[in-house]
Amino acid sequence: MSSEGRGRPRLEKPRRPGRTPRDEILDAAAELFTEHGYANTSTRRIADAVGMRQASLYHHFATKDDILDALLAGTVEAPLQLATELVAEGGPAVNQLYTLMVSDVAQLCRGTWNLGALYLLPELRVDRFAQFRRRRAELRERYRALAAAVIAEYGGPADADDLPFRLVESAINRRSDDGACPPEQPWISADGALRTLGYDGDFGALRAAAETRLALHAAVAT
Amino acid sequence: MSSEGRGRPRLEKPRRPGRTPRDEILDAAAELFTEHGYANTSTRRIADAVGMRQASLYHHFATKDDILDALLAGTVEAPLQLATELVAEGGPAVNQLYTLMVSDVAQLCRGTWNLGALYLLPELRVDRFAQFRRRRAELRERYRALAAAVIAEYGGPADADDLPFRLVESAINRRSDDGACPPEQPWISADGALRTLGYDGDFGALRAAAETRLALHAAVAT
Repeated sequence: MSSEGRGRPRLEKPRRPGRTPRDEILDAAAELFTEHGYANTSTRRIADAVGMRQASLYHHFATKDDILDALLAGTVEAPLQLATELVAEGGPAVNQLYTLMVSDVAQLCRGTWNLGALYLLPELRVDRFAQFRRRRAELRERYRALAAAVIAEYGGPADADDLPFRLVESAINRRSDDGACPPEQPWISADGALRTLGYDGDFGALRAAAETRLALHAAVAT
Repeated sequence: MSSEGRGRPRLEKPRRPGRTPRDEILDAAAELFTEHGYANTSTRRIADAVGMRQASLYHHFATKDDILDALLAGTVEAPLQLATELVAEGGPAVNQLYTLMVSDVAQLCRGTWNLGALYLLPELRVDRFAQFRRRRAELRERYRALAAAVIAEYGGPADADDLPFRLVESAINRRSDDGACPPEQPWISADGALRTLGYDGDFGALRAAAETRLALHAAVAT
């Protein structure tokens, strides 16, 4: 099995979703971290869940923290990339912010496991996770800058600029409470966030533009 | 020390905030749970932090889960009580909701430890915490009912009724990110939440009415 990389031979056939052993480890760890807790999950238990020797797991990830870091990075890198693209493409800030929020809520709701529920872990405060914390802070600043532009344009309340980021991430809490987001969650969150900024324009047009942009994005990504 | 209750004599003088050994245990546990993680904290470590024998701690709380349950209950019982009082007092739904939100955000921001950061723990899914989950769900339903009344009155979007509860709880996340809420957080959150419901009336009047009601409430409580 060439996809094994440097790992030892597998004990059995893959039993987790994922195209590679690395993806299978990430999926198993995401399940265990979100369902049983980070501190309660050992790398041994993750290896068992994948059907892999612990030594093989260590070929892919040296520590449990490395697995957590990879999972968390997955939740912020895509929206950061999209924010960069949207700003480069230009156009009204309200459209940029709306498209970013819709995409970000959709990804927080879509993953098999509710990884955002791990953001508040005290374990993330150590140096090992400094880069993740910095990247999430960058994403928050992207939101704030776009929100401030919308507030300025529509005469909204200046101190509301952190609320869109908060409403986007609150999809994590709704998902935790209800087991899933409602299908309309991206639009509910994005509409609500723009209203907190004093915007009360044509939500239908914003939605149509976001759908067009994100369909294009998805087409390019495949 | 009569305030010791049934516990054994203390090893040393109280070293934690709190009027009783029970309060000291809760304060120490809140610090350890939020700073080091629930799974990483033993009752032994809590007893050590209080300066109390582990056997004495067990006179107050039979299990670590009982301590967590008491801490979590403290975050939902006050807003539930206030919601009941506000509905009984009557008046416009928008005033009731605004006052509830301001008070609730203030208490989430005010506590020494950010207990709301524990809401997403997978450990809370077991039967032991069924009552806490039910009480928090009741609070959420109070928010939704008031939000639905505001939406109906001001012609807002029907599917926004869960957003005020989410914005209120997002003070937990802001506090976690920044180390504290800004002093204006209760008003920022409450204004933003009403805007998500389509309200754009006199926020100054709402704020004055909420301040009067909550000052009265505080005076009665003392």
